[in-house]
Amino acid sequence: MAGDKKLVEAITSRDVDFAQWYTDVVKKAELTGYTSVKGCMVIKPAGYAIWENIQKELDRRFKETGVENVYLPMFIPESLLEKEKDHVEGFAPEVAWVTQGGLNPLQERMCVRPTSETLFCDLYAKDIQSYRDLPKVYNQWCSVVRWEKTTRPFLRSREFLWQEGHTAHATAEEAEERTKQMLNIYADFCEEFLAIPVVRGQKTEKEKFAGAEATYTIESLMHDGKALQSGTSHNFGDGFAKAFGIQFTDKDNTLKYVHQTSWGMTTRMIGAIIMVHGDDSGLVLPPKVAPVQAVVIPIQMKKEGVLEASEKVRAALAEAGVRVRLDDSDKSPGWKFSEQEMRGFPIRIELGPRDIAAGQAVLVRRDTGEKTVAPIDAIADSVKTLLEDIQKNMFEKAKAFRDAHIYEADDYESFMKTAEEKPGFIKAHWCGDAACEEKIKEDTTCTSRCIPFKGGEPKEGAVCVCCGKKAKHLVYWGKAY
Amino acid sequence: MAGDKKLVEAITSRDVDFAQWYTDVVKKAELTGYTSVKGCMVIKPAGYAIWENIQKELDRRFKETGVENVYLPMFIPESLLEKEKDHVEGFAPEVAWVTQGGLNPLQERMCVRPTSETLFCDLYAKDIQSYRDLPKVYNQWCSVVRWEKTTRPFLRSREFLWQEGHTAHATAEEAEERTKQMLNIYADFCEEFLAIPVVRGQKTEKEKFAGAEATYTIESLMHDGKALQSGTSHNFGDGFAKAFGIQFTDKDNTLKYVHQTSWGMTTRMIGAIIMVHGDDSGLVLPPKVAPVQAVVIPIQMKKEGVLEASEKVRAALAEAGVRVRLDDSDKSPGWKFSEQEMRGFPIRIELGPRDIAAGQAVLVRRDTGEKTVAPIDAIADSVKTLLEDIQKNMFEKAKAFRDAHIYEADDYESFMKTAEEKPGFIKAHWCGDAACEEKIKEDTTCTSRCIPFKGGEPKEGAVCVCCGKKAKHLVYWGKAY
Repeated sequence: MAGDKKLVEAITSRDVDFAQWYTDVVKKAELTGYTSVKGCMVIKPAGYAIWENIQKELDRRFKETGVENVYLPMFIPESLLEKEKDHVEGFAPEVAWVTQGGLNPLQERMCVRPTSETLFCDLYAKDIQSYRDLPKVYNQWCSVVRWEKTTRPFLRSREFLWQEGHTAHATAEEAEERTKQMLNIYADFCEEFLAIPVVRGQKTEKEKFAGAEATYTIESLMHDGKALQSGTSHNFGDGFAKAFGIQFTDKDNTLKYVHQTSWGMTTRMIGAIIMVHGDDSGLVLPPKVAPVQAVVIPIQMKKEGVLEASEKVRAALAEAGVRVRLDDSDKSPGWKFSEQEMRGFPIRIELGPRDIAAGQAVLVRRDTGEKTVAPIDAIADSVKTLLEDIQKNMFEKAKAFRDAHIYEADDYESFMKTAEEKPGFIKAHWCGDAACEEKIKEDTTCTSRCIPFKGGEPKEGAVCVCCGKKAKHLVYWGKAY
Repeated sequence: MAGDKKLVEAITSRDVDFAQWYTDVVKKAELTGYTSVKGCMVIKPAGYAIWENIQKELDRRFKETGVENVYLPMFIPESLLEKEKDHVEGFAPEVAWVTQGGLNPLQERMCVRPTSETLFCDLYAKDIQSYRDLPKVYNQWCSVVRWEKTTRPFLRSREFLWQEGHTAHATAEEAEERTKQMLNIYADFCEEFLAIPVVRGQKTEKEKFAGAEATYTIESLMHDGKALQSGTSHNFGDGFAKAFGIQFTDKDNTLKYVHQTSWGMTTRMIGAIIMVHGDDSGLVLPPKVAPVQAVVIPIQMKKEGVLEASEKVRAALAEAGVRVRLDDSDKSPGWKFSEQEMRGFPIRIELGPRDIAAGQAVLVRRDTGEKTVAPIDAIADSVKTLLEDIQKNMFEKAKAFRDAHIYEADDYESFMKTAEEKPGFIKAHWCGDAACEEKIKEDTTCTSRCIPFKGGEPKEGAVCVCCGKKAKHLVYWGKAY
């Protein structure tokens, strides 16, 4: 078996070189592929199937709250991008420009959307006349382009896939409610579906989205102790509405501006899954998002009855709604074991002549490596129970890891020491001044991740960890992707 | 009720001005919306929900045959686009060029993909080494850009949504089999799901795809007698493989080029649904693709028990898997009737106090306008049976219309007369010479739609309808979108 293992090339150890380990896993698990388009990625079947499961589940959760899907153009004329001042300043330096269509230069150049606030505003300005036209709760699944200088698969690339929701409401209260509602959908989705615990909170002025009044965020912690912004939801107030002239006649017959929100989650979450759950054998997928939940691997495949029994097990699992694959290729069992581990499929089912004679199968969990034995007759029940257990265990393990990497710092010296020595979140008080954020970033590369919804109020008498003035908030700080 | 009808603005009659009727339906049924991006469209919720159903069903049919989804970059560097000679000649004149990324001009300009053969070849050249790596049967759902001069929603726009499958095989036979298999999936999908009858056949040399050895097509007939190319499947042979160097070591240990195919279907099919099934009251959606299959409309909504009974009916239908909507808004029933007709939802369920007292509901079919009465107790059974019947009837009606608009022409005079007077397909013999195709197009604007798989062999002694030389094929001709 040891010899077989070599068939799957070794990956760098996670604790030796996390960045290299990430690159190795992405490549060996065949999540992305080669492209000669610099800074862009090819998402291969194993990676795209994960995205399809993310899409399906998020889309279901969106639609339960009345979200409707649409599709808007991928191009934004320059004059449209420029309508909202903060927004254009935030995005203009990093867009790709189309200057020629067919054989002719364009009269006005257009960028490939980096995000579509301006296009949705353009549409809403035409479509919203009366309070009867509200709310609009639109979403689109698409790709966007941001001309990044350094790129990494899933985490930062010049083109990535996402969904972007854009809503318009009659009142500020309704917009605020929708902003929070969508953030909570993201948070629940991460925790329940991806088994990734998150901190829900608000971005500081410095870190908020270009053009937003308030940005809410969920922040997760990777295995190397770095934070990953995992989903954001923005309340625009009526800023865009004023810039684009989106007004409606309310019930009281007066003309009012709408209040808007936007919210997005991206293929970056595939990177988060890798970096939260993966280990030195490769990817570890939470059962709910795994394209394949169980792999049946026959042992001594040529012996009478082995393939038949394996196929029976496969069929019983498929019938019970388990996403199952039977690997009856001519590779060795050891090679198949390693491949299943590399690809992170939650359960491996080993089935050999002796198992079959005993009426049982060996189940091996990917998350812990633990082996159990289950009767073939009731294999579906055993597998389904085990999948639930793996999902639950993976979340608890990730949460315990995250919680063990949240530190507190009451003074600047201990903040700097923690930032240098202990990868993770640092909870520390802050005065609310951007200058302190700036100084902390310069000194430690830590940024304010969020003011948490729970526990963001400062303790009595607390002072800013940086300048010592009266604290306004307790903030989660961290080095981030 | 007559007064209510006016609430839904009238649309142009289909037989008076088909093009205007189409524009009116697209707008009034709220399938597309306003955009200041010239030549591009906004697909609004009512339109996008149709596309989602098309995607879901096609994707399911693809995956049953082993197709795997991927995502490739949206940009193609100019040097990559130029690798296959016929291909670049076909597409270069109609692409959009990105020349600047961020604040800097690009070293090499890139086009936004008009189709992704070149990108898939780039990937396959790296990923395919051995016969064990074959076949590759990849597909992607994405948007593409072609810089069209005149545009119409769904039928021809500068950006549109589609799927594009790209496969690589060890042998020419396998590639040919896959090309045909995908065409048949498209054909069955159109007929079974969209209730649109199609002619399956092969494109002539002149009409085939840029770079293909053979292009297969399905052609459907719109209500105005014009043809619509509804899906194509291309066999590339080893042409792209040679241009991109895609070679593999076969079982016999020799180096061989792969054989490739590609195939696509687009948002154009939403235009086909409109133009095949629509009528003077608006859209008519086949039940299988309809986002809403039945609308419950309460009559005298404020009377005791009406809303409760309506909600009960809605719940019973939802429970039975029918896509149902209860319209309990404060608009008049007449307005709601017109709206349901405009949007093409297959069944309207009217429920008033007298119906409820009698334990029944009135069902009105969108396709024929026929009213029937069904017991409320067994409403789900009645509705499901009726939906099946509507689906079947719509296909048969469209097929009868199509068949009644297929003409034959044995000589050029009768061809020209038919082309001028009788919108539809013209079956006529052809010698195989592109010059005759060219002449026919100049004289009549008809193009060769396809050489049908069934009945494409010429009759004995038949001669070309244009030049009188010996016929090689029987061809379907028509004016096309």
